[in-house]
Amino acid sequence: MTEPLTIALDAMGGDNAPRIVVKGAALARIRHPNVRFLLFGDEMKIQPLLKRKPKLRKIVSLIHTDKVVPSDMKPSLALRQGRGSSMWEAINAVSDGKAGAAVSAGNTGALMAMAKLSLGTLPGIDRPAIAAFFPTMRGESVMLDLGANVECDANNLVQFAVMGEVFARTVLGTQQPTIGLLNVGEEPVKGRDAVKTASTILRNTRLPIKFEGFVEGDDIAAGTVDVIVTDGFTGNIALKTAEGTARLLREFVRQAFKSSFIAKIGFFLARSALRKMQVRTDPRRYNGAMFLGLNGIAVKSHGGTDALGFANAIGVAIDLAAGGFNDRIKEEFGRLSETADTKPQAAAS
Amino acid sequence: MTEPLTIALDAMGGDNAPRIVVKGAALARIRHPNVRFLLFGDEMKIQPLLKRKPKLRKIVSLIHTDKVVPSDMKPSLALRQGRGSSMWEAINAVSDGKAGAAVSAGNTGALMAMAKLSLGTLPGIDRPAIAAFFPTMRGESVMLDLGANVECDANNLVQFAVMGEVFARTVLGTQQPTIGLLNVGEEPVKGRDAVKTASTILRNTRLPIKFEGFVEGDDIAAGTVDVIVTDGFTGNIALKTAEGTARLLREFVRQAFKSSFIAKIGFFLARSALRKMQVRTDPRRYNGAMFLGLNGIAVKSHGGTDALGFANAIGVAIDLAAGGFNDRIKEEFGRLSETADTKPQAAAS
Repeated sequence: MTEPLTIALDAMGGDNAPRIVVKGAALARIRHPNVRFLLFGDEMKIQPLLKRKPKLRKIVSLIHTDKVVPSDMKPSLALRQGRGSSMWEAINAVSDGKAGAAVSAGNTGALMAMAKLSLGTLPGIDRPAIAAFFPTMRGESVMLDLGANVECDANNLVQFAVMGEVFARTVLGTQQPTIGLLNVGEEPVKGRDAVKTASTILRNTRLPIKFEGFVEGDDIAAGTVDVIVTDGFTGNIALKTAEGTARLLREFVRQAFKSSFIAKIGFFLARSALRKMQVRTDPRRYNGAMFLGLNGIAVKSHGGTDALGFANAIGVAIDLAAGGFNDRIKEEFGRLSETADTKPQAAAS
Repeated sequence: MTEPLTIALDAMGGDNAPRIVVKGAALARIRHPNVRFLLFGDEMKIQPLLKRKPKLRKIVSLIHTDKVVPSDMKPSLALRQGRGSSMWEAINAVSDGKAGAAVSAGNTGALMAMAKLSLGTLPGIDRPAIAAFFPTMRGESVMLDLGANVECDANNLVQFAVMGEVFARTVLGTQQPTIGLLNVGEEPVKGRDAVKTASTILRNTRLPIKFEGFVEGDDIAAGTVDVIVTDGFTGNIALKTAEGTARLLREFVRQAFKSSFIAKIGFFLARSALRKMQVRTDPRRYNGAMFLGLNGIAVKSHGGTDALGFANAIGVAIDLAAGGFNDRIKEEFGRLSETADTKPQAAAS
C-alpha cells in the first residue's frame, strides 16, 4: 500500500456523530498511514473537533452538508429527501471516483437504498447483501445476508455464496474459504425449498469454490465453515441472537465474580486474562458490515459504536478497497455466467 | 399432586439409551414421589439396569418392544415401519389413556409424525409446534416453533402465540406472560408478510393476552418478553445459534483462566461461583421440548443428553400433565374461535 487511498466518511451518521467519526478517523490514520479522508457533514460541528486533531486535519478534506438522514427515516423517503445529505454525498464521492470507499454509521436501510441507486449493482448480482465477520472457535468467519433482503430465492443465495467467498478471501485472507448454507438440519431432505435448490446449484457448480453443504445454527460459533450463507431475515436474527447470548454470558460471569468475597479476589487475579477474553468478543472489533454486490464499496458501522469501533469499520473499508474486492467479485461472476450455473433451470439438472 | 401420575418413556430413544433413560427415571422419581412409569423397550437390555434401581423398579411397568426407530429415519418411513417400536408404543400409551404424557430422546421428526397421527391436533390448531424454555437476563422465557414447521403463515404464528402463552403460564408459572413476534426490526413496516399480518391479528384480538409487538434476536437472551413466537426455521436456527454462542463464550472463559499462572489461581478461588454460572446455563437444565397443539402430551429430550437432562425432560412432562395444560389450551382456542380472530379476513380489518 504505497498509493494513498481516499475514504469518504458520513460524519453525521450514528448516535454519537460527528464526535466518534472524527475520533475514529484519527485512530484509523495511525493504523493506515496512507489513508486520506473526505469528511461530509456540518462544518460548524466538525471544525472544532478537527482542531484538536492536527495530524488528522492534514489528511482531511471537509465538505459542508446541511442535511442529515434521521435514523428512523424510511429508505424510500430518504431517497427522495436525502439528496445533499452527508450520507448521500459520501456515497456519491465513491460513484464519482473521488473516494475508494464510503463509511457511515447512519440509517442502514437508507444507506443501502442510496448505495444501490448511486453505485448500482455489479453485473450478475440481482440483490446486494450485507456481510460481516465474527469470532468463532477456529478464528473468524463471515455471514451474509444480515438484513438487506428478508426474502431470498435460491439464486440470491447462490450469489451470496460467491460474494461471501471473495469477501472471506479479501478481508480475512482465507486461502480457500469453505461455504455452508444455514439450515435446520444437515440432511439434504431438510429445510426450505430455496435453501435446498441453492444447495443443488452450489453442489453442481464448476466454480472453484468449496461448498460444504448445510450447516446449523451452532456451526456459526463453532466455525465449521468460513462463510455462512442465509437470507437476510434469518441472518439478522442469528447475528442478534448471538450478540444477545454473548451479553447474557458476560453478565453471568460478572455476577459469578461478585457473588462472594473469595470470588472477587479470584476475579482480581484473573482480570487481565479476562480482559483478553473481552477483547476477543468485543463487538467493536467486529464492527463494519459490508454492502456486497455494489459497483463500489460502502461499509456500515454500528450506529451506537464508539471511536474504536468506527476506526475498525474504516479498516474494513480500506481492506476492501486496497484488496480490489469488487474486481475479484466481477471476475468470479464472469466465470459464473459463463457456466450459467445461476440460472434456475440448472437447479433441475 | 396426591394422585399418582403415569408417564410413558421411550426407553430406546437417544444416543445413550436405554441407560440414561433408566437413570433419568430414577432421578425423576426422587423429585416427583407420585410418579409411575411405563417403560417401552428391549427387556433384555432394560432388566439388568432396573435391577440396580430397586426403588425405581417398584414404580415401573416394563413392556417389551422389539423395534427401535433409527435417529436418521425419515418421518414418513418411521410412520410406515415404526409400528410396534418403543417410540410408537410410548405415544400410544398416551392416546389410550394409560399415561398422562410420553417422553422420548429419539428421532424428533418421527416422534412428531407419530404424535400427530396417534394423538391428533387440538381443535383450532392447524399445526403443532415445538416449544422450549431457556435462560434470560430476567429469568426464563419460552420460544416456539423450534423446528416442526419450516414454513408458517400468519395464522400458524397466531396459534403459536396462544399456545406459547398457556405454556408459559403452566410450566414457568408466569401470571400474565408477555408475547413478542421475532422480526428483523421493531418498526411495523419491517419484516416478512406473515409476521406483519400475524402482528395485526394479535394487536386486534379480544383474547386477554399481552402482545408486545415485534422483538429482535437480542431480545431472546435479554428476556424482553416471556414468549417468543417465530416459524420453525428461524426458531431452530436462533436456538442453535444461542447454544453455539454460549459454548464459545464458555470456551473463551476457560482459555482465559488457563492463560497464566496467576489467572489459574484466580480461577481456583472463583471456581465455586463459576460453577453456579455453569449450572445457570447448563443445557441439561433446559432439556425437554414440548410438542404443543396435540391432543396429548409428548416431550422430546435432546438425543445426546445424560440422566440429569432426561430427568428434567420428565419433569417438564409432569408439569404439563399435572397442570392440565391441554385443557387450558382448548379453553383459549374455544374463546379464540368465538372471536374468529384467527381467520385470515381478520387481518384486513
